[in-house]
Amino acid sequence: MKTEIISIGDEILIGQTVNTNATWMGQELAKIGIKNNRTTTISDSESEILEALKLGESRSDLILITGGLGPTKDDITKKVLCDYFNTELELNQEVLTDIQAYFKLRNKPFLESNNLQAMLPKACTVLRNHVGTASGMWFERNGKVFVSMPGVPYEMKHLMETGVFPKVKEQFGINELAHRTVLTHGLGESFLAEIIEDWENRVRAEGLDMAYLPSPGLVKLRITNTEGNQQIVDKYCEELYPLIPEYIFGEGIITMQETLANLLKERNATISLAESCTGGFASHLLTAIPGSSSFYEGSIICYSYDIKEKELNVPKDLLLKKGAVSEEVVEILSEEIRKKYNTNYSIAISGIAGPTGGTDDKPVGTVWISARSKNKVVSKKFSFGNNRERNISQSALASFNLLRKLILEE
Amino acid sequence: MKTEIISIGDEILIGQTVNTNATWMGQELAKIGIKNNRTTTISDSESEILEALKLGESRSDLILITGGLGPTKDDITKKVLCDYFNTELELNQEVLTDIQAYFKLRNKPFLESNNLQAMLPKACTVLRNHVGTASGMWFERNGKVFVSMPGVPYEMKHLMETGVFPKVKEQFGINELAHRTVLTHGLGESFLAEIIEDWENRVRAEGLDMAYLPSPGLVKLRITNTEGNQQIVDKYCEELYPLIPEYIFGEGIITMQETLANLLKERNATISLAESCTGGFASHLLTAIPGSSSFYEGSIICYSYDIKEKELNVPKDLLLKKGAVSEEVVEILSEEIRKKYNTNYSIAISGIAGPTGGTDDKPVGTVWISARSKNKVVSKKFSFGNNRERNISQSALASFNLLRKLILEE
Repeated sequence: MKTEIISIGDEILIGQTVNTNATWMGQELAKIGIKNNRTTTISDSESEILEALKLGESRSDLILITGGLGPTKDDITKKVLCDYFNTELELNQEVLTDIQAYFKLRNKPFLESNNLQAMLPKACTVLRNHVGTASGMWFERNGKVFVSMPGVPYEMKHLMETGVFPKVKEQFGINELAHRTVLTHGLGESFLAEIIEDWENRVRAEGLDMAYLPSPGLVKLRITNTEGNQQIVDKYCEELYPLIPEYIFGEGIITMQETLANLLKERNATISLAESCTGGFASHLLTAIPGSSSFYEGSIICYSYDIKEKELNVPKDLLLKKGAVSEEVVEILSEEIRKKYNTNYSIAISGIAGPTGGTDDKPVGTVWISARSKNKVVSKKFSFGNNRERNISQSALASFNLLRKLILEE
Repeated sequence: MKTEIISIGDEILIGQTVNTNATWMGQELAKIGIKNNRTTTISDSESEILEALKLGESRSDLILITGGLGPTKDDITKKVLCDYFNTELELNQEVLTDIQAYFKLRNKPFLESNNLQAMLPKACTVLRNHVGTASGMWFERNGKVFVSMPGVPYEMKHLMETGVFPKVKEQFGINELAHRTVLTHGLGESFLAEIIEDWENRVRAEGLDMAYLPSPGLVKLRITNTEGNQQIVDKYCEELYPLIPEYIFGEGIITMQETLANLLKERNATISLAESCTGGFASHLLTAIPGSSSFYEGSIICYSYDIKEKELNVPKDLLLKKGAVSEEVVEILSEEIRKKYNTNYSIAISGIAGPTGGTDDKPVGTVWISARSKNKVVSKKFSFGNNRERNISQSALASFNLLRKLILEE
């Protein structure tokens, strides 16, 4: 089965938008065993879209199209699809009701142009969009499937998950793959590969697929059997655990912060944070989890010396002598925030995110993290690198992992 | 002049790597007035590469190719290019010297396979790579130019900047494009379109390109003249401002938080935040800006009632009577945090991010925001929607915009 993606939009071609849609779709397709063979990005131009549809039909079985479905004049995908499939637009009453409800919920006036979003090609199966106004459109011709979706990432993802994947699995008789994804933190890809080399060779010799999926701070190890043999996948996963026990924090699609949140919830425990260099990002990751108020109380973002001193009782002479990025300071911060906000656990993070502020002694990327319960504290120094964004995100993940281990050891 | 990009690599197709190369190339091409008409991503497969080269030659004048130039077996681009251009590899002594020096400088052992990197097609002009081992290759045939570059982003950028752009400008006698991108916040695409409909019609009648580029909370309006007439672009941009003065916050590639940060820096002013439903995300956006310590002091993330009450002096009976999501509460929060952290300005955000916690009175997506200076306060209620992630991000952007306007009005 051949699959391709057509991304429509000048904003991608001229680099104002990164084509993360194609990345996500490629990943998700791979998870159900479908390889994306090609991604083509083209203009919102009638002739370009028509040509891409023709080429797509000539070489692929499944053509996934994103973009060009907005209500404005430069969005022409729907019109071109009508021409291509020799069909015309008709009012879809259910979609119109959805759209009116969508605007009502948001207290926004309903404009005439929004009606156009309910005009859909007769020849397609409509995939309802509950998070926006542009419907998905599923066309079939000679066994080939075309799906058109909006380019807004969360709308596209919603449509893929609720409409496209279920229909694709049915239509193309997709075998369920047997797979597990083991999540590791704290070791780079090449170091990990060295430790598990023998195991990996045996996994591959068995005919299983094995992939390293790195993202900042994490490496996911995905083991797949395309014939659906879950037992063999389980066997090798179980052999993997004792090889790298201290680096595995979970499996599947759970994040590090969700792992920590689950530990806290299981214990009816609460957490507070004192963040310096991460500037709120660690708290954000925890509070992005729905229902976080059951375990998260609050944080102080103590960016300045003043706030560290006045709000969290770090002695000024200690700040001057040891610097804000020091074991002594993060241990005071974690202790003070835990007491002040009256929580079971706390985290404190202080580091040099960069690009400036580094010294010979403490170069950019140096971060001290302290994790604490009532009776125990663990503090650790990290050296991440010279990219500000990565230093912030890796510090947050490392802090969660430090507290996760502390909780498990208690 | 027609231009296209061919990106070679399975890792992009299956979503392990985001195609940021194409994004960067599209941006940089646009800056010198060349529009990228198409980006095609394909496998490291001989037939796919040959087909893409043929199609590229048939429709484009400039074909920029990245990827597949490494020293390993799955890198076949160079071989396929030799076939396509009917040429063969020969040892390039200067490149070999470069590569040997490259390894010596980095104290890395020189492997036999690295010699292969100095074997280059006879028919091409070699573009020397001083930051890696894969050379750029410039081919010409019937006035059409093909350039092959490695996929490692900093190597590709180095080759584009030092080799490709100078030769392209010369070869194609490039005109600069005229364009401006006006950034708006607070109105959806269709509402904006309705207000500026007449203006948009005139822009298009004039032959200018005009595009809406939406992202959560923002809509960018890009106006372009492909013949480089900046005056005509400026004329229409100036006519746009009075039509939507309250929605425009900047131009170009600046973000809302950078706009606010610049206003603060210009005034030597500082900011603090009291965040409830945004859980640290607004502070994160501000502290993600390098050098943020010059204007950002700190925040309290007052997620629980307790912290609102004990740390920010919100009376318990007010919380019980009006609820945490109320004008009264956010006004106390913005006042208390500003005084406590001794800053010129402050922001307070309290809302119902969802998915739970909504009531008939205050459905999910209801957010109160207060922005404050020493002498002035503005508070506003927003109704965003039912997506937690978007409610968090839109609340942060809306809070920055509220404070931005307050500062400008002072």
